[in-house]
Amino acid sequence: MMKIDILTLFPQMFSGVLGESILKKASEKQIVKYNLVNFRDYADNKHGTVDDYPYGGGAGMVLKPQPIFDAVTDLKEKSHSTNPKVILLCPQGERYTQRKAEQLACEDHLIFICGHYEGYDERIRQYLVTDEISIGDYVLTGGELAAMVVIDSVVRLIPKVLGNNESHVNDSFSTRLLEHPHYTRPAEFRGMKVPETLLSGNHRLIDDWREKESLRRTFLRRPDLLKELELTDKQKKWLQEFEKQ
Amino acid sequence: MMKIDILTLFPQMFSGVLGESILKKASEKQIVKYNLVNFRDYADNKHGTVDDYPYGGGAGMVLKPQPIFDAVTDLKEKSHSTNPKVILLCPQGERYTQRKAEQLACEDHLIFICGHYEGYDERIRQYLVTDEISIGDYVLTGGELAAMVVIDSVVRLIPKVLGNNESHVNDSFSTRLLEHPHYTRPAEFRGMKVPETLLSGNHRLIDDWREKESLRRTFLRRPDLLKELELTDKQKKWLQEFEKQ
Repeated sequence: MMKIDILTLFPQMFSGVLGESILKKASEKQIVKYNLVNFRDYADNKHGTVDDYPYGGGAGMVLKPQPIFDAVTDLKEKSHSTNPKVILLCPQGERYTQRKAEQLACEDHLIFICGHYEGYDERIRQYLVTDEISIGDYVLTGGELAAMVVIDSVVRLIPKVLGNNESHVNDSFSTRLLEHPHYTRPAEFRGMKVPETLLSGNHRLIDDWREKESLRRTFLRRPDLLKELELTDKQKKWLQEFEKQ
Repeated sequence: MMKIDILTLFPQMFSGVLGESILKKASEKQIVKYNLVNFRDYADNKHGTVDDYPYGGGAGMVLKPQPIFDAVTDLKEKSHSTNPKVILLCPQGERYTQRKAEQLACEDHLIFICGHYEGYDERIRQYLVTDEISIGDYVLTGGELAAMVVIDSVVRLIPKVLGNNESHVNDSFSTRLLEHPHYTRPAEFRGMKVPETLLSGNHRLIDDWREKESLRRTFLRRPDLLKELELTDKQKKWLQEFEKQ
């Protein structure tokens, strides 16, 4: 069972996401155990203060090291894991990718630290955290949503979490190409038609169409992904065709 | 007031996130209005079916065009906005950035379409959607978390949503450099010290230290961001220094 501790000042934010769908099922199946920890409970001052003004002045507050150090130490002691990943969500972190999700899915204990508006005292980063993760180049109010994103992408990769209908073998990024277009009934919807090939019943043609459209979409939208790929002769010929169009 | 419609089969997933912090305050201040819509309610068949098998075979289900077309048409008719953004969250979309958040923050009506496990019938993309957005190169169970990420990053940029303490002028990405390290009391915590400069009270030195450390962090962690920047002479000198180290 994977243990996921989440340090946050807003534990209620997680209720909807952890209480629905795949993340809920994973916990019901006892594949994952979530533990929401309000690190204000670890503040060693009587007012429960967790942040303070920044040294050197300036706007905004900074999360104090003490409550977070003590919370992480306590969670490590309580768990049987020897070497948990202590993950800080922040825009300065390593850019999150599917490869990182695959790595984290092999761990048995993840501790997420979520700040909210505030900065983090640098000593938390330097001496406590093992992984700094950014989910993208945009600014969020807090680390909570970023933690939910990482948790969702990791938990669905753990064996037996997904059923057959929710399979992830053809996910974008796991095949390194964007997905081809999908169509379902009706064959004509308000004048908009499904491509003939998909209705043909010829599975060789359909597979070919899908591979080509997957490549075309990647070429048009994310040519950067093609650089990492070893292309077949067929794919190379298609690319030449796209380039001419 | 900005109107945000969210089409999802899992409206409960949003309760924690929309009911806390900044997103809640923005709605209480009547700056934003959220409207959760279960598009199953628009299915024109008696079983409320919203998905079907893919043409051409394969694993997984595909969201049918009819319920989503009808939901979006209805929401457009009910609103006074002339040209809402209809946003599809999907790994094939444009990569989300702070610049896109700034653009969306100027709109008065956003409609988010969130699929879950399933693919989308391509006709939804082609004929209904104005923006396809991907929050990053990783796979999520559904578009719901991605929608929450986009909504959070957009709503906090709308004027009067953030208070002074939550200011966004120094955000990473809005200054185009990663943030410098922050420190707060105590000056020494369990042997770990705050840099002398920050304790000096000399604001010229402190500003210099911050600018340099911000540049250093960007150089070490995200050199790609430096390419888009016009550097000052001082910054160029610092970069030469970092390169030697």
